[in-house]
Amino acid sequence: MKIVYKVWLDQDGKAFGDGPYVLLKRVEKTDSLHQAANQMGMSYSKAWGLIRSVEERLGFPLLDRKVGGVSGGGSSLTSEAREFMSTYDRFRKKVDVAIEKIFQQHFVPEQRKKK
Amino acid sequence: MKIVYKVWLDQDGKAFGDGPYVLLKRVEKTDSLHQAANQMGMSYSKAWGLIRSVEERLGFPLLDRKVGGVSGGGSSLTSEAREFMSTYDRFRKKVDVAIEKIFQQHFVPEQRKKK
Repeated sequence: MKIVYKVWLDQDGKAFGDGPYVLLKRVEKTDSLHQAANQMGMSYSKAWGLIRSVEERLGFPLLDRKVGGVSGGGSSLTSEAREFMSTYDRFRKKVDVAIEKIFQQHFVPEQRKKK
Repeated sequence: MKIVYKVWLDQDGKAFGDGPYVLLKRVEKTDSLHQAANQMGMSYSKAWGLIRSVEERLGFPLLDRKVGGVSGGGSSLTSEAREFMSTYDRFRKKVDVAIEKIFQQHFVPEQRKKK
């Protein structure tokens, strides 16, 4: 038996969770919302809508959009986004450790824990 | 902003979570799977299927079914079910407290916490 969970931040509806986190991480790596969306098998318009909805609920911009130029533009994370991502990352890791520990305490017999 | 989550036990698929917990709590109160299902706006056959599926994944019987008699039968929780429910209840409360605490530590500004 194992434990499974989903967790998200809510601000008058789903505001932020693992989906937007992974999308933004990929934007950070690729400097492109297009490529980030592609990597997740998500249409650009869906990815863009998701970013807009998260920005609205969180109340700050996530992406700096560079239009045109030799590379045809791109996106990078705002400093607020980077700070928020870092907080979310710490939050998720703590939740993960806590839930697994509580699960072990309640549902895993002593013998199996010692293995 | 607040935190929302869903958690469940998995054993080759969803094995147990808040849905079955609430259903079994109602069986415990009413001594009837029929009434418990009714109270949750669930068909009897769906409730029965859910119980069977949980029993299969957890590996022990949940309900003692009494057939016939003056009251037309009924269901009560097995001792294994009662023990499991009690463990699950403690587990859920601990998870709730832990997640809320971690959320507060990461996302709630100091000023708001002091209010």
